[in-house]
Amino acid sequence: MSSPLVLALDVGGTNLRGEVLGSRLGAPVASLSLPTPEHDGEATFAAIEVLCRQLLDRLTPAQREQVEVVGLGVPGIVDHVRGVVRLAGNLGWVNMPLAARLSERLDLPVLVHHDVTVAGLAEQTLGAGSGVEDLLAVFIGTGIAATIVVAGKPVTGGLHQAGEIGHVSIDRDGLLCLCGQRGCLEMYSSARAIGRAYGELTGDPDATSLDVVSALGTDPRADTVWSDAIDALAHGLLAAITLLSPSRVIIGGGLSGAGPLLVDPLRARLVANARVAAIPPIVVARLGQRAGVLGAALATFRALEMERVSA
Amino acid sequence: MSSPLVLALDVGGTNLRGEVLGSRLGAPVASLSLPTPEHDGEATFAAIEVLCRQLLDRLTPAQREQVEVVGLGVPGIVDHVRGVVRLAGNLGWVNMPLAARLSERLDLPVLVHHDVTVAGLAEQTLGAGSGVEDLLAVFIGTGIAATIVVAGKPVTGGLHQAGEIGHVSIDRDGLLCLCGQRGCLEMYSSARAIGRAYGELTGDPDATSLDVVSALGTDPRADTVWSDAIDALAHGLLAAITLLSPSRVIIGGGLSGAGPLLVDPLRARLVANARVAAIPPIVVARLGQRAGVLGAALATFRALEMERVSA
Repeated sequence: MSSPLVLALDVGGTNLRGEVLGSRLGAPVASLSLPTPEHDGEATFAAIEVLCRQLLDRLTPAQREQVEVVGLGVPGIVDHVRGVVRLAGNLGWVNMPLAARLSERLDLPVLVHHDVTVAGLAEQTLGAGSGVEDLLAVFIGTGIAATIVVAGKPVTGGLHQAGEIGHVSIDRDGLLCLCGQRGCLEMYSSARAIGRAYGELTGDPDATSLDVVSALGTDPRADTVWSDAIDALAHGLLAAITLLSPSRVIIGGGLSGAGPLLVDPLRARLVANARVAAIPPIVVARLGQRAGVLGAALATFRALEMERVSA
Repeated sequence: MSSPLVLALDVGGTNLRGEVLGSRLGAPVASLSLPTPEHDGEATFAAIEVLCRQLLDRLTPAQREQVEVVGLGVPGIVDHVRGVVRLAGNLGWVNMPLAARLSERLDLPVLVHHDVTVAGLAEQTLGAGSGVEDLLAVFIGTGIAATIVVAGKPVTGGLHQAGEIGHVSIDRDGLLCLCGQRGCLEMYSSARAIGRAYGELTGDPDATSLDVVSALGTDPRADTVWSDAIDALAHGLLAAITLLSPSRVIIGGGLSGAGPLLVDPLRARLVANARVAAIPPIVVARLGQRAGVLGAALATFRALEMERVSA
C-alpha cells in the first residue's frame, strides 16, 4: 500500500492556505493560497472548496488516489468531534456543519480542528517547543489565542474553549472589546490593536503593526505604541504563567515576525514584574506561516493512526 | 499482610491537622490538631514532630506496625521529588529538607506534597469534583491558590508552580501585595483581605471575614466589602476559566464556609461578565477542613501503590 497523503488547510481570517502533505510533513506535494472572502460565510465555504479542487487538480492520478482525508484548521469555537464550527465571527459562520458539507462536495472524509490548537501542536512537535512537555504557545495576529500544552498534550478543556488568552481582561475598566468585555488583552497587544493605536497618533487610518515596527527608533510615537502593547502583553502572559507554570513560552503569529524586537523586551518585563512565578524561556515560533497548515496535517495524521489502531 | 496505614498531616498557617488513615480514607483511626507556631520555622518543625508522636502514641501496637509512611501537605513552593520545601513564607521555611529531617526523627519514610494540589485532588476524587475530568478548585483562606485538573490529573507545570491564582494581578496599578507585585487577587478576595477592608471601614483592627459574613444585610459597610471582594474574585476567576475552560469550578478553603452567600453572587457575576468563555457550574467544596489531610493521605497511598507496581 502506498503511503497516505492529507490535504491540509489553514482557514485564516486573511488567507486560506492549503498543502498536500505526506506523513513526514516535509516539503508539500502541492501548495496553494487564496484570499479569504470578507465576512461572507457562504463565499468562504465556496473558496475552501475551490482551493481543495485546485490542489487536487495539481496532483498526478496516483497521488490523487493517495489522498485519504481533508484536515482543516479553523478559528473560533470548533466542535471537532462533530466537525461543526459553532462560531467563527471573522468568517461569518454560526453552527456551520463544515465537515459534512465539504465531505459531500469533495467525496472525501473531512476533519475539522481548532487552528490555534493545531498550530501549537505543530510548534510543539516540529518547531520551537520540540521536546518540551509543558508549554504555552501564544499566537498574535488580528486576534490573540494560545495553545496550552500540559504533560505533552494540548489542553482543550472540559467545555472545549481553552486558550482564549486574547479575551483575558487585563483592566476591568479598560477598552471595550468586540466581544463585549472590557480590557481584553487583544484590545492592547494584537497586531490590529497596535496598528489602530499608531493610526490614532499619526492620523493614518490604514496604519498597521508593520508600520510601527518599521518606525521603531525613529518615530517616538511608534516606540510608545510598541512599549504599551508589550506592557499589556507581559501583564496578560504573566497571569497565564502564574496559573500554568510552563517550561517554555512560544510567541507565534504574524506579530512574531518582529522577532527580538518583540521577544526581548517582553522577556525583560516579565522577569522584572514577576515575584511569584518563575519565568521560563520566551522564544519565537519556528514554523512561521506554515504552523497552521502543518498542525492541521499533523492532527489529521494522528487521527488516521488512531483509527487504524482501533479498527 | 494487614492493610497499611498512613499518618497524614495538613501543615496550615493557623493549624496543624493530623490523621491516621487506612486506604479507604473513611473515619480516621486517630486524629489530632495543634496550633501552628507563628513565623518560627524551627518551632513549626518541632510541633510537627510532636503531633506525629502524639498520633502514633494513640495507636495500638498492632496499628503502630501498620503505619508505613508519613505524608504531609505543605503550602509554598514544594519540591515533592526531593521532599524539600523551597519556600513557605508563612511558616518561615527556606529550603527546608522536611522529608529527610522528619524521617530521621520518626524512623519512618516521609513524603511531602503541595497542600493545595492534594486538597484539590481530594475534592476531585472524594468531594465536589467527583467524576469531573477538567476542573479548577480554588481555595480561599489567608491566601488564595488553586488546583488545576486537566484530563483527570492535577497540573503542576513544567516549573512546578502551577495554580498560584492568588498572585494573578487583576489591576496593574492596584494594591501592593506582600510578594511585591501590584493587584494580586489575594489582596482583594482572600479572607485576610476581606477582614482588613472591613476593619478599615469600622476601625476594628481585629475584624475578620467572619465578621463581614455575620454583618451581611445589616451593616451596609459589610455588604460593600463583600461585594467588592466578589467582584475581584469573579474577575480573577474569569481569567482562569477563559484560559482553561474547566467543566466545574470548586470553591474551597475557609471562606467557602459562607456557602451560597459567596457562591451565588460569584456565579451571577461570572455569567453576567463573560462574553467568550462558557461558565461552568460553580460549587462549594465538600470536604471542608479535612480536604488537606485527606488529600495528603490520598497522594501518599497513590505513591505507595506506584512503588509496589514498580517494585
